[in-house]
Order: sequence, then C-alpha cells, then structure tokens
Amino acid sequence: MEGQKRIRVGLLGLGTVGGGVYRMLLDNQGAIERRSGARLEITRIGVRDANRERDVPAELVTCDLESIVADPEIDVIVEVIGGLEPAGDLIRTALANGKPVVTANKEWMAKQGQAYVRYAAEHGLDLHYEAAVGGGIPLIQPLKHQLAGNDMVRMMGILNGTTNFILTRMTEEGAEFGDVLRDAQAAGYAEADPTADVDGFDAQYKLAILSSIAFGKEVDPETVYREGIRRVGKRDIEFADLLGYRIKLLGIVSSSGQDHLQARVHPTMIPKTHPLAAVSGVYNALWFQGDFVGDVMFSGRGAGSDPTASAVVGDLVDIARNLVSGGKGSAIPVGPKVASDPIESLETSYYVRLTVLDRPKVLGTIANLFGEYDVSLAAMEMRTLSAEKGEIVFMTHRCQEGRFRPAIEAVGDSSVVDRVENWIRVEG
Amino acid sequence: MEGQKRIRVGLLGLGTVGGGVYRMLLDNQGAIERRSGARLEITRIGVRDANRERDVPAELVTCDLESIVADPEIDVIVEVIGGLEPAGDLIRTALANGKPVVTANKEWMAKQGQAYVRYAAEHGLDLHYEAAVGGGIPLIQPLKHQLAGNDMVRMMGILNGTTNFILTRMTEEGAEFGDVLRDAQAAGYAEADPTADVDGFDAQYKLAILSSIAFGKEVDPETVYREGIRRVGKRDIEFADLLGYRIKLLGIVSSSGQDHLQARVHPTMIPKTHPLAAVSGVYNALWFQGDFVGDVMFSGRGAGSDPTASAVVGDLVDIARNLVSGGKGSAIPVGPKVASDPIESLETSYYVRLTVLDRPKVLGTIANLFGEYDVSLAAMEMRTLSAEKGEIVFMTHRCQEGRFRPAIEAVGDSSVVDRVENWIRVEG
Repeated sequence: MEGQKRIRVGLLGLGTVGGGVYRMLLDNQGAIERRSGARLEITRIGVRDANRERDVPAELVTCDLESIVADPEIDVIVEVIGGLEPAGDLIRTALANGKPVVTANKEWMAKQGQAYVRYAAEHGLDLHYEAAVGGGIPLIQPLKHQLAGNDMVRMMGILNGTTNFILTRMTEEGAEFGDVLRDAQAAGYAEADPTADVDGFDAQYKLAILSSIAFGKEVDPETVYREGIRRVGKRDIEFADLLGYRIKLLGIVSSSGQDHLQARVHPTMIPKTHPLAAVSGVYNALWFQGDFVGDVMFSGRGAGSDPTASAVVGDLVDIARNLVSGGKGSAIPVGPKVASDPIESLETSYYVRLTVLDRPKVLGTIANLFGEYDVSLAAMEMRTLSAEKGEIVFMTHRCQEGRFRPAIEAVGDSSVVDRVENWIRVEG
Repeated sequence: MEGQKRIRVGLLGLGTVGGGVYRMLLDNQGAIERRSGARLEITRIGVRDANRERDVPAELVTCDLESIVADPEIDVIVEVIGGLEPAGDLIRTALANGKPVVTANKEWMAKQGQAYVRYAAEHGLDLHYEAAVGGGIPLIQPLKHQLAGNDMVRMMGILNGTTNFILTRMTEEGAEFGDVLRDAQAAGYAEADPTADVDGFDAQYKLAILSSIAFGKEVDPETVYREGIRRVGKRDIEFADLLGYRIKLLGIVSSSGQDHLQARVHPTMIPKTHPLAAVSGVYNALWFQGDFVGDVMFSGRGAGSDPTASAVVGDLVDIARNLVSGGKGSAIPVGPKVASDPIESLETSYYVRLTVLDRPKVLGTIANLFGEYDVSLAAMEMRTLSAEKGEIVFMTHRCQEGRFRPAIEAVGDSSVVDRVENWIRVEG
C-alpha cells in the first residue's frame, strides 16, 4: 500500500517470543497493514550473542541494545528479553526517549511496571503489556477498556500453563507430581529449573498485574499469598474427584471491603461444574465477576511463541493506530501501591486429608479438636489403610484461615492422628 | 474529582438497556472517572412516551430525539432504541454533527452500520458497538485490537441466549421444543413473538458483524445462511448424546479460499469435549481460531440489562479517553461488501434420522442411495419402533452439501423410508 505510514520497530530479544513476533509481522503483513493503517517493520534487533545463526537478516542484528532504544530512527520498542535487568533499564530509556513500548515482561510489570505506566500516561506514551499475562488471550485490554465500567467482585484464573498441564496429567493418569514433572521436563513443557512455575511465582506476578488493573491500585506482588503445587498428591486428586471437585492452581483476588483486597495463588478445589474446571492441559483462563457484567470467562493458550507473538502484535497494532491518528497514547495509570490482606483473614472452606491410628473415638476426638477452634465439618470420607491405620478426609464449612491454621496444627499434634497429609482450600 | 473533564451523554432509549446504562453510570461513577479520566454524565434522555413514570429526573427526558443529536451541548450519543429506523437516522445525524456514537443495535450494524464506520473513520470519530454482539462479553474490540495480527481460520459462536436456554432445557429435561418455548415465554426468557431468536435472525446479524471484523470485509447479512431451532426434536438430542455430541445453535464462519468466506447459522452437533458444548443456559460464547493465537474462547451473559450496559459503558469509557487525550477516534473501517459462499459449497458431516418401514434390505437400499451421490456413511444406530416401523440414525463422512441435499431427497422418496425426520450438520 503506497502512502501508508511506515513504523519502525526495534525488537529487543530474539528468543521464542521475539522469533514469533518477527515471523508474524512478515507472514500477516496484509492484515496488519489494513487494521493498523501503517506498515510495521522491524528495522533493528537486539540480541545477546550476535554471532549465532539466525533466520533474520544479519544487518538488522546488534548486541548493542542501548543503541536501539536511543536510535531516533526507531518509532516503537518491543521488549521480549524478560527478567528485571537489563530489560527494565532499556524500557525506561525507551520511554525517556519518547518511544512507546510493548513488553511481555511479567516480572518487571508486576514489580516495577506500574510506575512507568504512570510516566507513560503523563507523557502521552503507550506502555502495553498484553503478552505479560495469558499469552495470546486478550485479558489486560478488555479489563482496562470493555469491562472498565464494572466494580470488580472476584477474579479467578488459571495463569500458568505448566502447572495446569501437570495437574491435568496427574488427574487423567492418576500419576504423582514428581513423575509427571519429569515427563514434562523431558517433553519441554517444563523448565529444567521448574521453580518459577511449580512454586507459583509466575502466577503470582500475573495475578498482581491483573489485580492492579481490576482494582485500579498497584498491588504489591510480594504481598500476594503464594503456594505451589508440589504438595498436591494423586490421592488428593482422587478424593477431590469423589467429592465432585477438580484441583487447579488458581490465582484468586476479591474485594475484602473498602480499599481492601485479597490476592492469593494456591492449589484450589473447584466444583467440576465451574467453567474453570474444564480448562485443561497448557490452556490458561481468566474468570471475572463484575457487578454489572456478571461472570465472563476468557480462555486460550497461555504461552508459546505464536500465541504470545499474537498479543505483542495486537499491542503494536494499537500503538500504530495511535501514531497514525496522532493520538496521545492510552496508558491507564493505577493508584499508589497497596498490599493484599494477609492470608489469615481469608474465609473459605478447607479439604483436609489425615492418616489416623485405628483406635476408638478417633473421629470424635478430631471433630472436637476442630470444634474448639470454631471450625465445623461439612463432609467426611474414611478408608482403612491397614490393620493399624486409616485415612480420613474432611471438608470444613467456611471459616477464617486464622482459626483453621491453629486447628489443623492441634489436630496434627493429637495422639490419634499419625500425620496431616495435606489440606487444600476449596472454592464454593 | 475537580478539574476532571465533563462529558455530556445523550441517551436515546430508556428501555432495558438504557435503564442499565443510566444506573451503571451513577452507581460506578468513581471507577468510571478513574479509568476514563472524565466525568460521564447523562444530560438528556430521549424516549417515545414522555409521560410514563420513570426513575430518572423528569427534566432530562424528552420525546424530541432529533433535538438531542442536534444539541451542541451533547458530547456523545448512546443509541439503545434498536431496529432500523428511527435509530439509524439518529445515528447518522449524530455523526454528521461530529458526535461520537455508541450503539447496541445489531440489526442496524449488520445491515447498514459498516458504511458509517467508514464515515466515522474518515471524520476522526468513534462509532462503537461492543454491545451489539454477546451482551457484556468483550468480543468486538478484542477482535479489532488484541487479535488484529491474526489471519482468521475459523470462528464459532453461541450468539443467542434464548435459543441456548431452550436447547439446554430440552437437553436437561428431555423436553420438546414447543413445551420449553412456552415455559420460556412465561418466564420472560423468550419474546411473545420468538421469531428473531428461534429462527436465527438475531444470530445471523451478530455473525455478520463478527465476520466483517474478523475478515476485514463487510459481510452481507442476507447472504449468511440461516436456519433456526424449531426442527430440533428431543429424539435428536437423545441420539446426539448417545453419539457423544451436544446440539447448539451455532454461528460459524470460516475462510473458504482467497477472498471467500462461508458464514452460516444453524443447529449444529458438536462433540461434548468441545468447550462450546459446556456453555449452557442463557450464556453466549465465541470460539475463535487464529493462525498465530490458536484457539481462544470468550463466554458470559449475552443479554440482559446489566451485562449489555457494561458493554455500552465500556465503549463510553473508550470514547471519553479519546476525547480527554485529544485522540481522533479509533473507528476501524472494513472493506467493501462481500457475500458469503452459498451453503451448497459447504463440506461437513451430517446426522440423519429416518423412520423406515420394517422390511428386508432397508439398510442396504438406503446405503446404496447415499452411495449414488458419493455420500459415505460413518456410523449408524437402529431402533425398532413398532411391528411395522423402525428408526435409523446415520452419521455421514464429510461431503459437500450440494451432494448431500439431493441424496437425502432421494432417500426420502425411497419406498423403504417412511419419513426423513431430521438432519443436522456436525462439526468435527
């Protein structure tokens, strides 16, 4: 198309996501030009090692990333390096040089990004980060725009594909965590060091980002309660199934009164009838409840080269339209930093699995102990394991975690209880 | 908040949706001001009968709708009257007077709206219509923005809540269409004249709107194939269940080669494992497959006062941000009108239910008849109905509808067949 505005993109990082962005801008040039009103062209690519063989023209590639964000010939910066530094420093410099930025960097966005959204808004720049949460699923922009009129009631999400893949395989195959993790690592679905995924850090960053948008306040990621999936056993998954539940690693945030919110990431039992229960494998999903819209769910591929590239390019199309129309950028700043309420103030139900000694009055003793902490029981399953031992599963009624924790400690210390095998929070 | 820009909204229509918009702007004023950077205030309301009792200040209300779209004191127009006229005329005048417009009008958008999106784009105005499809579910803007980099492969949607409610009840209760429709009418879930919903017109308009965005070409709604749910029997739903399927009224559009697309609305059998199969009751959903993003699904309440208000207010927030930032509007025009390919060129599988006479060679005769038209059979179920009659259900392999139609006609004319009870298209 002649006469189209040409927008020069500086790409920082040419890993999985960067490669996808490069391909998508070439492959779908026609559709992108039509929708953005501009010709988006990657004119410089910053990498760590310039000598590696790559499928991109060598003359675009440089190791001098600083020179890209300083280059007056570059209109927009795409940051897909990840991690806090040097990514954060490059984004800051790009913005200071008046360049709009697209980033897929969840850790930087969760820990430092909102300050730069404020800076961007003040300077009429765009700082877009759709790819930081949920891969290709549109989440951030719909929350900021189409759902913006709602007061948020609750949000629950499957925000990490690796853990959802592991839990799905454990459920389908009746396998234990360690075995499935090893398989997933061998197949490339899990990292050699799986900590960021299986211990919930990745989901914690993403939930902090989503919570900040939904509440309009910067939610400190360090205060988002975090628990990973290592403790989930195949036996828990079996009992969950029996009781009508699935176990998912959920990020959950809800309003807990004026200017208070509670954000938490942990394995959660949800009813099989809940739409999130059916989201399996590497899929991610966000279930949002607003006061007017009711409940809305978004699902799709939460990671991978092509889906993440889709989100980055969507952000680029938005920025291009702004540059073409002379708009001043649409960064939406959120209010100052707030902390999530401590987990002890949570009110929910709990699933508890115990190994007990096969003696008289076991049940009564345990029920009385819970009762002393005002924790009342809603359901129970019991199995004989051997001549000396049995297995008991309880579901409690809703109670405060501040009461539940000492109760479960007291139960563990009881002479009739061999071991508290596990306990898991339950969503109604 | 002092110093906030005040944006004066003219509301055309104070029915279900209009009332919701009015309440939402009042109830959620704080969140809306924070996110839009402006104070959105409804300063005039146009209604048909000014004398009816209403929960809004009487001084805002007028019957002179033309005066609202002409009023220089009005910054934005919200049209929630519906239907072609006078709604269309009012929108046209509003745009001609330089006012951005939000509309929830699916019929006008499908039949005439894209010409005015072009006009709006040329004049730097916004013409937003998120509420026209899927109630409060963000669909239009995510397709236009976050998914804009994708070439669309296929899109399937449950776009009408009334028919999904009826089909869900038929499935859950083993009831017939007519009985459930009467119940739904009594409960207010279906209109006294249910034609627009049950005969698929509503879904046809919505699919035309979505297809236009996804393909970047104005899709003529009259060429979108349309079939309602009146023919679906409880017996079909039972057989579908037996074969592993659910029956849903789907809007489906796919690319059928360079510059060709096929858009259709009809009852469809989809596997129970497909995410759309689990979308029940009045919920709507859109399943989108893009070349980079893979498959993405959006679901939520597709109608009703509050969810639809949520979409209208989301559009208002966007427009307010544009007005505040001095942006030129973000209407994205699509290309000139195209027709959907005729249904005869469709390639799919079919479910067929026949009543047959209980004679020798019935099966062979039918199978041979299908064979003469190159329609091959994939599965079969047979039941005895009485001494003289039996029931046969076939699933065909994929074949062209242009071959299937004469085949099923020939089968109906066969002396061994009493009646072709029904046939339904099947998605893989």
